[in-house]
Amino acid sequence: MHELFDFLRIPSVSARSEHRDDCRAAAQWLCDKLTSAGFTASLEETPGHPIVLAEWRGAGPGAPTLLVYGHYDVQPAEPLELWTSPAFEPAVRDGRIYARGSVDDKGQLYLHVKALQAHLAVRGTLPVNVIVLAEGEEEVGSVNLEHFLEQNRDRLRCDGVVISDSTMFAPGTPSILSSLRGLAYVQIDVQGSTSDLHSGMYGGAVVNPAMALARILATLHDAHGRVAIAGFYDTVQEWPAAVRAQMRTLPFNEEHFRREVGSPALGGEQGYTVLEQLWTRPTCEVNGLLSGYTGEGAKTVLPAVAMAKVSCRLVPDQDPRTVERLITEHVARVTPPGVTATVTALHGGRPWRAELSGPLHDAGVAALEAAFGTTPVITGEGGSIPVVGDFERILGAPVLLMGFGLPGENAHAPDEWISVENFRQGMRAAATLLDRFGAARHS
Amino acid sequence: MHELFDFLRIPSVSARSEHRDDCRAAAQWLCDKLTSAGFTASLEETPGHPIVLAEWRGAGPGAPTLLVYGHYDVQPAEPLELWTSPAFEPAVRDGRIYARGSVDDKGQLYLHVKALQAHLAVRGTLPVNVIVLAEGEEEVGSVNLEHFLEQNRDRLRCDGVVISDSTMFAPGTPSILSSLRGLAYVQIDVQGSTSDLHSGMYGGAVVNPAMALARILATLHDAHGRVAIAGFYDTVQEWPAAVRAQMRTLPFNEEHFRREVGSPALGGEQGYTVLEQLWTRPTCEVNGLLSGYTGEGAKTVLPAVAMAKVSCRLVPDQDPRTVERLITEHVARVTPPGVTATVTALHGGRPWRAELSGPLHDAGVAALEAAFGTTPVITGEGGSIPVVGDFERILGAPVLLMGFGLPGENAHAPDEWISVENFRQGMRAAATLLDRFGAARHS
Repeated sequence: MHELFDFLRIPSVSARSEHRDDCRAAAQWLCDKLTSAGFTASLEETPGHPIVLAEWRGAGPGAPTLLVYGHYDVQPAEPLELWTSPAFEPAVRDGRIYARGSVDDKGQLYLHVKALQAHLAVRGTLPVNVIVLAEGEEEVGSVNLEHFLEQNRDRLRCDGVVISDSTMFAPGTPSILSSLRGLAYVQIDVQGSTSDLHSGMYGGAVVNPAMALARILATLHDAHGRVAIAGFYDTVQEWPAAVRAQMRTLPFNEEHFRREVGSPALGGEQGYTVLEQLWTRPTCEVNGLLSGYTGEGAKTVLPAVAMAKVSCRLVPDQDPRTVERLITEHVARVTPPGVTATVTALHGGRPWRAELSGPLHDAGVAALEAAFGTTPVITGEGGSIPVVGDFERILGAPVLLMGFGLPGENAHAPDEWISVENFRQGMRAAATLLDRFGAARHS
Repeated sequence: MHELFDFLRIPSVSARSEHRDDCRAAAQWLCDKLTSAGFTASLEETPGHPIVLAEWRGAGPGAPTLLVYGHYDVQPAEPLELWTSPAFEPAVRDGRIYARGSVDDKGQLYLHVKALQAHLAVRGTLPVNVIVLAEGEEEVGSVNLEHFLEQNRDRLRCDGVVISDSTMFAPGTPSILSSLRGLAYVQIDVQGSTSDLHSGMYGGAVVNPAMALARILATLHDAHGRVAIAGFYDTVQEWPAAVRAQMRTLPFNEEHFRREVGSPALGGEQGYTVLEQLWTRPTCEVNGLLSGYTGEGAKTVLPAVAMAKVSCRLVPDQDPRTVERLITEHVARVTPPGVTATVTALHGGRPWRAELSGPLHDAGVAALEAAFGTTPVITGEGGSIPVVGDFERILGAPVLLMGFGLPGENAHAPDEWISVENFRQGMRAAATLLDRFGAARHS
């Protein structure tokens, strides 16, 4: 574990230019570890932080190839004063390793490196060919990864990708993350008059863009919490009945969830449990609103413009470009006379759902079962991890999301931690995965 | 006119503490002028800037008393670089006097002082008793005036109040301002979760307060532009048919108005002309909106709170307190489950409408007719001048709003001006008003 601590001590904050050398140092540290384990490893330059690429091809061309993806960069540690122990000085308390990057993702990446290292040290070989790909820009949007995958498609050819950068459903409950929602994020700008007007002098004859925006936004859902944008659900696929049934058996207390978020009541689309709403159903949310006077007290302005940030979480097989177009058409349809509305696409990402079968999935289930002594549960995730779709699309290989974080791990907050036990069991699962994946393909 | 220039040179900006002495200097200057004209004048202290109070009681207890109200304070002159000539160095160009305060309100106040001075100089007497009351806090909300009126109710007893602090409908068209809209200004705060959430992790099950706010605001009007708050129109009085008919004869080009504001189309309550909408009908406007992320680009936040500033312009006999209550009840009725909404009253003011008859009104019509050679038109005003209602309510006297500004006068902007011709004709109207008001009451 002292090796992991060395890794965690390097403040490889990708978002801050003053940590540019630290990012390179973390990449080099990882590269050296993989080299001494027996890999052929190098830093691959990108316009941003380098990618660590390491290969071990000793299983031969007939054996399957597994790609392990992770990232060595971390979130900024601020606010520093809220950390119990310094962010870049790892500390063990109550069975947890506290440090920035402990769970996201240095710890989860390194448990794979340790498993490979141990395997090679003990047996001198691995049951499969292995590629380790660790990027340094995950926390800033993986801006150079897609291009790198496309440029190195042949070299990176593999039979499966394993990523440990997510959480388990609960302590002692190993989990395979089977779905991620996509995203279609737009900005709606409504313009009325040329400039702000006095609400006394002009109010009553001039259409108020803030009021018009409110009327537009109010049409985005129906009375049952369903998104009311025409065509929005056309490509939404029903979840497999077995997965839906398994989700309903997960121990999840909706009242506890409500208390945790602090809302007076839960809402959303009627007819679904909270976990189904979060994991399997698309949404449409307002992320921001701005118009007119927002300071203290009263100012009698009739605003010239009003703005909303609106984003939809998407599920298979919704397409972000299509949803952006549907939103644009909807807004055009419902914009009242007297104002103009413009919809600008800001960000998009495809939804993803795993095939819950095949050699990689089966090997993952077996590996987690062996490490934790219990069958993993199938979970979903309401957010997005865009690289997952990129790997599947560009490399044509299935992706296994096998995470060892836990709820409350503070991934992007002060006092980030990973459970020592999960680190050890994760390492065991990573090692077993190699065996099972190799065996499955040879059988 | 050189006297007015001396008055305009004093930078009596009431909002700026560094101009405190300048405000007092302007008050003292005015006090001295009234004293040398023959008035008994003094500075009356308030917690803020002093009030100038001057009395001439020579007409005797049987004669009517006219109170002239104005203000010696001015708006800040910034941005200074946009002035063609310095704000506090009066300059005459193209028949206009340019200076901060030229029209709002030093020029319009001083034309009354000049009329009184000339009357007394030529005839040695006035046809009515006269009180001049000039405050120094109009531009900061007349915060001490109401209390002063209440404390000096007996001393200020009068038969009419004349105020010149408004504009004429058009050049050569003298105008009596017959109505002012009131105001009920509230803030609506909607709260969902305790803190901001990740829209991927929580979106779909947690009610979005920005979306809830939009739905609340969308219920404030019906499809015909009428305010849909229950009880809102219950006390709204129809305008006198004759006044409404006269308003329809005023030369007003709605397409020109639309081009001026720059909106793609006009809107508002159906069935009324623009002037009727602005002068005679109540409104409900959003003055500000704020929620979540409002910066550049995309941030996937599910906001915890959303805020709207909402204000209603009121017409007789709507009451601001009542309208605040109706808004609060309406919001409670339409707030969706999953969020809480709070309505906070920020500011209120009563609407006002003149009695368009009686000795003061008739004297005003006659005075304007004599000065301009044409019958004045009756206009309204969409904004509010709260002191008007205070005078009527506390002193029990009618108020005549006889203004000599013109559209485009830049009252609160750089290059403020008053027409030299309007200043002279206004002085003549002010002098004639004394005669006519005296004659009317004696007949």
